[in-house]
Amino acid sequence: MTELILALDVLTREEALEIAEETYPYLDAIKLGYPLVLGAGLSVARELSQFDLPLIADFKVADIPNTNRLIAEHVFESGFSAIIAHGFAGSDSLKAIVEATENAGGECYVVAEMSHPGALEFLSGETAEKIAQMAVDCGTDGIIAPATRPERVKALRSIIKDKKILSPGVGAQGGDAREIAPLIDGMIVGRSIYNSENPAKEAEKFAFVRR
Amino acid sequence: MTELILALDVLTREEALEIAEETYPYLDAIKLGYPLVLGAGLSVARELSQFDLPLIADFKVADIPNTNRLIAEHVFESGFSAIIAHGFAGSDSLKAIVEATENAGGECYVVAEMSHPGALEFLSGETAEKIAQMAVDCGTDGIIAPATRPERVKALRSIIKDKKILSPGVGAQGGDAREIAPLIDGMIVGRSIYNSENPAKEAEKFAFVRR
Repeated sequence: MTELILALDVLTREEALEIAEETYPYLDAIKLGYPLVLGAGLSVARELSQFDLPLIADFKVADIPNTNRLIAEHVFESGFSAIIAHGFAGSDSLKAIVEATENAGGECYVVAEMSHPGALEFLSGETAEKIAQMAVDCGTDGIIAPATRPERVKALRSIIKDKKILSPGVGAQGGDAREIAPLIDGMIVGRSIYNSENPAKEAEKFAFVRR
Repeated sequence: MTELILALDVLTREEALEIAEETYPYLDAIKLGYPLVLGAGLSVARELSQFDLPLIADFKVADIPNTNRLIAEHVFESGFSAIIAHGFAGSDSLKAIVEATENAGGECYVVAEMSHPGALEFLSGETAEKIAQMAVDCGTDGIIAPATRPERVKALRSIIKDKKILSPGVGAQGGDAREIAPLIDGMIVGRSIYNSENPAKEAEKFAFVRR
């Protein structure tokens, strides 16, 4: 049905390696963000590559084209296989990341819609649909959309067709894995796995959603 | 009139330290971005602190509130005195950064309007004005607005009143220092200084705009 992506939002290199070691047999990919990378350095990606899973840099890149390109180059040189960018900095900024992604043979995803309350101010509704269309027009690999709002995932699917949808929000945020799994390509789960007493067992519980 | 902020967008720790060493007597602050920090590590901020200038982390932070807070905490713990965030992720995301900023006794700026072509798709016009108002409502220290569009700087000034405006775009992008200086609080100059044969001399040329 879908892939299981661990959002490895722990704060130290040691925790990251420990959780990855325990859970990797039950995962399809691992997503890292800036809080970990700023503390541990980009080199944490190389260390995590031992588990032979795709690594996604969730850096929500949103700068001018040249800066975006430089960030994306760093990301792929460090062993990541995918990058997550924002679309709201505009098509030229996004295209700069897509070019760097293609040069590296990686994947690029765009945040179409977010699920925290403040997302309703800009990153939802018509703006989300406009960004989803931009994701198609700029040749990205897909979008990020909230597992907590299945009806929105369906609306965005009608725009992006067979591109991929990766969705955070299952678990701690209340998204229903059974409901969302058939609608998406990657289910992003974080706290409910890495904060568990037994992360491996918790990750294995999602086996039923995996392709 | 205004402060002179060097956008130190070089790619290695060595270049960063060398340019800072040459130019610091002519500067009021130094701004660093992710391309340098991802390569050199956050520790480059501590090394640059020897020049006793405020350091601004231009990370254009645009994530959920908890992630924004963690990024801001890393930034201030690393020796930065200010952080640049996006407003696009919403008020709750911005407030999380403002809280971390206040806890650290730092400053927080919000990108209201950008100057690359793609900014016209979202980050300009009414959206920029809405974000400028958000910068006021959330208690930030000011906004980022383009030196290449003085008429827009004036429009945004009418919203943010006595909060600060920092403006990139003078020099390589064609913004006119004499025209923009009276309108803003910080003039951000990058390539025309750090790509110069003589960065110190180039930085000194902006003495006439400094308070």
